[in-house]
Amino acid sequence: MRMETVNREQKVIVYDTTLRDGAQGEGVHFSVKDKLLYVQKMAEINLPFIEAGWPGANPRDEEFFRLAADLSFKNTKIAAFGSTCKVNESPEQSDILANLLASGAPVITIFGKAWNLHVREVLRTTLGENLRLIRESVEYLVRNGREVFFDAEHFFDGWLENPAYALSCIEAAMEGGALVIILCDTNGGVLPADVTRGVRDVNRRLSPQELGIHAHNDSGLAVANSLAAVEAGVTQIQGAWNGFGERCGNANLSTLIPVLQLKLGYQVMDNSVISRLTHLSRYVAELANFPFDEKQPFVGRSAFAHKAGMHVDGVLKTRRSFEHIVPSQVGNEGRILISDQAGKANIWERMQHYQPDILKNDIRVEEAMVQIKSLENQGFQFEIAEGSLDLRLQKILGQFAPPFQLVDYHVWSDPLRGDLDSVAVVKLQVGEETVHIASEGCGPVNALDQALRQALCTFFPVIEKSELVDYKVRVLDESSGTEAVVRVIVETCLGTDKWGTIGVSSNILKASAQALLDSLYVTISKGNISKDLTAGL
Amino acid sequence: MRMETVNREQKVIVYDTTLRDGAQGEGVHFSVKDKLLYVQKMAEINLPFIEAGWPGANPRDEEFFRLAADLSFKNTKIAAFGSTCKVNESPEQSDILANLLASGAPVITIFGKAWNLHVREVLRTTLGENLRLIRESVEYLVRNGREVFFDAEHFFDGWLENPAYALSCIEAAMEGGALVIILCDTNGGVLPADVTRGVRDVNRRLSPQELGIHAHNDSGLAVANSLAAVEAGVTQIQGAWNGFGERCGNANLSTLIPVLQLKLGYQVMDNSVISRLTHLSRYVAELANFPFDEKQPFVGRSAFAHKAGMHVDGVLKTRRSFEHIVPSQVGNEGRILISDQAGKANIWERMQHYQPDILKNDIRVEEAMVQIKSLENQGFQFEIAEGSLDLRLQKILGQFAPPFQLVDYHVWSDPLRGDLDSVAVVKLQVGEETVHIASEGCGPVNALDQALRQALCTFFPVIEKSELVDYKVRVLDESSGTEAVVRVIVETCLGTDKWGTIGVSSNILKASAQALLDSLYVTISKGNISKDLTAGL
Repeated sequence: MRMETVNREQKVIVYDTTLRDGAQGEGVHFSVKDKLLYVQKMAEINLPFIEAGWPGANPRDEEFFRLAADLSFKNTKIAAFGSTCKVNESPEQSDILANLLASGAPVITIFGKAWNLHVREVLRTTLGENLRLIRESVEYLVRNGREVFFDAEHFFDGWLENPAYALSCIEAAMEGGALVIILCDTNGGVLPADVTRGVRDVNRRLSPQELGIHAHNDSGLAVANSLAAVEAGVTQIQGAWNGFGERCGNANLSTLIPVLQLKLGYQVMDNSVISRLTHLSRYVAELANFPFDEKQPFVGRSAFAHKAGMHVDGVLKTRRSFEHIVPSQVGNEGRILISDQAGKANIWERMQHYQPDILKNDIRVEEAMVQIKSLENQGFQFEIAEGSLDLRLQKILGQFAPPFQLVDYHVWSDPLRGDLDSVAVVKLQVGEETVHIASEGCGPVNALDQALRQALCTFFPVIEKSELVDYKVRVLDESSGTEAVVRVIVETCLGTDKWGTIGVSSNILKASAQALLDSLYVTISKGNISKDLTAGL
Repeated sequence: MRMETVNREQKVIVYDTTLRDGAQGEGVHFSVKDKLLYVQKMAEINLPFIEAGWPGANPRDEEFFRLAADLSFKNTKIAAFGSTCKVNESPEQSDILANLLASGAPVITIFGKAWNLHVREVLRTTLGENLRLIRESVEYLVRNGREVFFDAEHFFDGWLENPAYALSCIEAAMEGGALVIILCDTNGGVLPADVTRGVRDVNRRLSPQELGIHAHNDSGLAVANSLAAVEAGVTQIQGAWNGFGERCGNANLSTLIPVLQLKLGYQVMDNSVISRLTHLSRYVAELANFPFDEKQPFVGRSAFAHKAGMHVDGVLKTRRSFEHIVPSQVGNEGRILISDQAGKANIWERMQHYQPDILKNDIRVEEAMVQIKSLENQGFQFEIAEGSLDLRLQKILGQFAPPFQLVDYHVWSDPLRGDLDSVAVVKLQVGEETVHIASEGCGPVNALDQALRQALCTFFPVIEKSELVDYKVRVLDESSGTEAVVRVIVETCLGTDKWGTIGVSSNILKASAQALLDSLYVTISKGNISKDLTAGL
């Protein structure tokens, strides 16, 4: 028995704040359209609560709640977020509370201060007045027919500094009729032991109906603190996909959910959702247009990527030896990386994709290893450009001959002359034919890409179906600015298939051309494979 | 009293595996030169142990240990990493052990199997033979005059599955004479409660001289597991700066060290080192040429970056309200972000840098907010381009007039014609003068950069001192490949000052020109300021 997983009685409810606290993360941005798509997606997976924004805080959130008012889902509730009314204001006078009610959201979550420091120095009022704000605001929203959740902001800081007062804030919210009390580590500074003690103290002294945890990652402990809270009796977990959120982010749902469900045996989401976690996390990052953190536990591309030769050797014998869960449980997959740290096992495994019977001591395995280590020395990085890697391996195996050659190319640009300001001329050799073509584009790289595609698509129609989905440039030798060696990575997509190709040069256009050519070579060879498959049917 | 920090008696010793396990992270790469620079830097801060590589595993590590043999430091020891001898081999026959000894490293860390699954399915030998490998390998290295540390690979998985056998592996290493036994969560799958129990069990049953912890982040718990181990009695913490490492990475030293020292009161490193943590972490990422994770606790640019209007309001009243430590304790700083989530407080705070007496309800604060929100809608992102942001704010305040104008420019490239394959022609207006200049470059962006600098440096000599240190391109609308809107970020450095500028366009050259122009404008204005400062002396 390796891992004790029991099916626990205690439920754990997910409250997703990706669209609110998540969007407070630096560089995270959701448009109104993104938010609507997001809500639909989360409703599909029956995510219980989605905190979708602060009605009235900005035009975007206003528009969202106007459009979302028509939506209703079977197992998902939208929550509007806001604060208590202001100091010296009655709930009836409060614009904040009026906006929350006007949003039409069935659940309203308001935060209130639970740390005496904040009451005195941020609200600049008395401890008693703060209790009134909490009690009356909650009560007013409840009276108006909403389910009200109360975020006890900075609960743990407050509880460590003035436990009696922090508890009285929670009591005020309970008196007002809050259904769930969420204990927040707003600054992300508390440690798991204090979370455990704090949760137990609240439960022992106040016995609230339901408790939640809202943790931030400023000490690298958001997941650990959330686990500690659940193990101490909390049932609602607040967090954001991919750990988005203010500063270092909120508790990462993409990590927390599988730990709770796969390792501790809580029933958090349907198993069918767990097996789509990788897809879901990537979907959210794409909506937010935020670079996906590939080192993320469970869902990152690196999460089950083995680089050290010894690890690869172990994994090839039994996957469990170096994988803490089965990657497919979360919709991810194991990968064997090729780098200069790779042992022969890594390269051999990869070459077997193209020649299943190749032996580990075949001379071509050694040849590939030498070539790859030398290119990596020049700045190539095949871990992130598996398309280019595979081309090289196929070439060594004698399975690849370039379907065309780029004989010559020129590009010129007059950027102040309108949109299609660049012209590329390319000369290609395709079999016996020479193609000489010019194409306009928006910028030099686009002009070159257009010319290549235009010249080739009559020969290889699959090219029209492929799409360039990402283009990344990285300066390798940072000390020499625009003269430095640059690495261009192009990501290409054909249906659901997606691969990276790479070019390295001190000339950005040359590096781009190299990556584009590899992208086209891979596209063409994938086109041939699907044609062959059809031919066999 | 907010945080109980006591000065604990128990020491905590850092064992840094950035150059070994860290380098097993996807995308992490250190050259031999990088490794030598790295070791020097860590010796400067008296880091006790640096695991620098596996002698004999690849040419790079071989060369490194050859060159490192001449280095010696007062408070820092270099450790060579490797494994026990192989099955059915005596230590004297082992190439692995011979290479470790030949490396000359004063400390040798070897790993051995502590999980019965690995013994049977990866080593494919008997449980007894594995104990022999461990005992004899350790003993042989000790006999040859080295301090030997033993990494008990997969200790926790082994201990959960077969506790008696896992403990007997440790006993074998102790019998061999290992100075430190390191309990490894190699797959990163165990939870803090199991770490606590495992450490206590080892201490209670075997009383080793010194215990270490080696945690991976596959469950998002590497820091929490390391803390749990230290609180249970472990004294050596293994980890990597920035959390580099195989798969999801090793325990992040940039997080773990400040949590132990600032929050739990352990004396881990000199306070002067803690106050340089941000610098150190960035230095390591630059050496590894790995993008710095800006969301990292303590040392990331986002770690104390406040985006929500309410948070900014609180921080401006008392920083402690939304900052869990004082950022300068770790050499970081608080930041107020400008985005469409910004309240007026954010923009107002930033404008005060340029006009300290501006009022919050000044019409120009509103104007700036509208302009910024509209540009962010088009794809600008000022959070990461504060140079461009400041230019816009200064313009609105009437404090900025462009020192020159770009009237026209053309670029052409023949990439197959050698290194300087691009020519840019720029026409500039500087005051009354018109400058028309051509310059060659390696690629179109470099040619444009060269032409601009050449045209301007006689007017603004500060430009020669400034350097372009990074150039990043991001495709914004990923669905349209090279035609899509791209965002170019340029990072410029002038002495120790560093800032980002931004350009957005569907033409990569135009976006680059925009970012380069902003970079030059900021450079020139900084040049003027330093001139003014000198004038005042």
